[in-house]
Amino acid sequence: MDLKAYLASKRQQVEQSLHTLLPQADGELQLHLDSLAYSLKAGGKRLRPILCLAAAEALGTSFPQRLMPVACALECVHTYSLIHDDLPAMDNDELRRGKPTNHMVYGEAGAILAGDGLLTFAFELLSQPDTGDLLPDRARLEIIHCLAQAIGSLGMVGGQALDMAAEEKSISFAELQTIHRRKTGALITASVQIGAIIGQANQSQMAALTAYGNAIGLAFQIVDDLLDVEGTSAQLGKTSGADAKHQKATYPAFFGVEQTRAKAQEAVQEAIDALTVLGPSADRLRELAHYISSRSH
Amino acid sequence: MDLKAYLASKRQQVEQSLHTLLPQADGELQLHLDSLAYSLKAGGKRLRPILCLAAAEALGTSFPQRLMPVACALECVHTYSLIHDDLPAMDNDELRRGKPTNHMVYGEAGAILAGDGLLTFAFELLSQPDTGDLLPDRARLEIIHCLAQAIGSLGMVGGQALDMAAEEKSISFAELQTIHRRKTGALITASVQIGAIIGQANQSQMAALTAYGNAIGLAFQIVDDLLDVEGTSAQLGKTSGADAKHQKATYPAFFGVEQTRAKAQEAVQEAIDALTVLGPSADRLRELAHYISSRSH
Repeated sequence: MDLKAYLASKRQQVEQSLHTLLPQADGELQLHLDSLAYSLKAGGKRLRPILCLAAAEALGTSFPQRLMPVACALECVHTYSLIHDDLPAMDNDELRRGKPTNHMVYGEAGAILAGDGLLTFAFELLSQPDTGDLLPDRARLEIIHCLAQAIGSLGMVGGQALDMAAEEKSISFAELQTIHRRKTGALITASVQIGAIIGQANQSQMAALTAYGNAIGLAFQIVDDLLDVEGTSAQLGKTSGADAKHQKATYPAFFGVEQTRAKAQEAVQEAIDALTVLGPSADRLRELAHYISSRSH
Repeated sequence: MDLKAYLASKRQQVEQSLHTLLPQADGELQLHLDSLAYSLKAGGKRLRPILCLAAAEALGTSFPQRLMPVACALECVHTYSLIHDDLPAMDNDELRRGKPTNHMVYGEAGAILAGDGLLTFAFELLSQPDTGDLLPDRARLEIIHCLAQAIGSLGMVGGQALDMAAEEKSISFAELQTIHRRKTGALITASVQIGAIIGQANQSQMAALTAYGNAIGLAFQIVDDLLDVEGTSAQLGKTSGADAKHQKATYPAFFGVEQTRAKAQEAVQEAIDALTVLGPSADRLRELAHYISSRSH
């Protein structure tokens, strides 16, 4: 299967599962549950769940359908982070993936609670007991711990806090790297690592996949910075030039567009080099690394 | 040990553990980590961790110090919920436990992230691998699942969403009960249930402790409503009469003060009746039920 077909097929699987898994309730909670579904359904590449699937597959495991809740949890976390980042008190964005942001539709309180609900739901999915025989309890706990560390105060949440603090002040390139690593990189790396746990990676495989995750996380953020400079709102589905508006430090601001492109390529190469130990079974991950650096939205 | 000494001693244990467990980092994340510590240290009765400890003890388990992270996770969740509930977009409260609310000190974005960080940290604490031999992995997963369900979109977060939607509109008593059960009751019940899992409760013990948790959760909320009507800001440590200001439905609004007091007593009696199967080892839980209904802040 070529990459395009692979991405489309996995994306459909993830979206189907998300749809099935989302909490259902009687009338009174409908509006709140709609607010979760609104952002979850708003599209996106489903990159994090797909990285998780692909990492498990690179270790020779055919990712079992019954573990889809684990992959879906990653998308719930990603979606929660977007909802909270878009809030008026944060980046104050009105468009996301071409649609009004959550708080534009459900109000500020509604959006805060949608995010809180999705974050909590991720951990509910990860601790679901019914798939216990596919994944040892110990591995499931490792997954929960890996994710919680990646997205907490020393990871994604901390990265967003640093990003907010960095607005309208001058930061060094080292500080920019720290923000990127925590804010975007940590969840991407964790997605790969969680796939590795599912695929029962040994120590050297885990090290290789972690290095891969770190490198594609970096590539992803560099391309994001580039797209913000170069893209139109229509391509991005969000307000372009938002970083400049917020006077945020970016790769292009430090290095210019050409050198930034080269750095994205370097990161992709680093990701691919990290996979040597895994041999040809990791080809899909290699393709994904190229895909991440070539995306245009 | 009498109840007062018991509460003081357990509270100190919990606060000591929270202090030790909180994430540490180098300079750049200090402000964010301070924002978590600010609200965690702002006092409170530490009721949820203490209920967890007491429930485990009622089953003959001396609560092991090495499981304190589990009890502390409950306080992290409670504190996150207070920080987000106090936000300008939610209840817009400026005082909490006699101190400025988190967003008054760290700003709105800071407070949203402090809450996100604490919620995530709770799951990090619960999935910590190092205490695995005290608590089977399966029990640890049950605890995580129990908590996530209780505080998610069909539990605490959903309750807050309903509470927001109910402001300034007329709701029935049945709707008020649903809001209370989800918003306040679910986490209190889960705290008791998690203690029960630690104490290796059998089915009838779990049923008894769940019924107890539900009843004290109700008593707690009824007393909260009463205090809001009767208390002064100084006693409450938060703005009194806030419910009336938001035109929130409360027990006293439905039944008047006297009948509301009687209902609190009924709930306490229900809690105590539920414990019959546990015999005298549950005396501390019985005392706690009385304590909850008699508190003045």
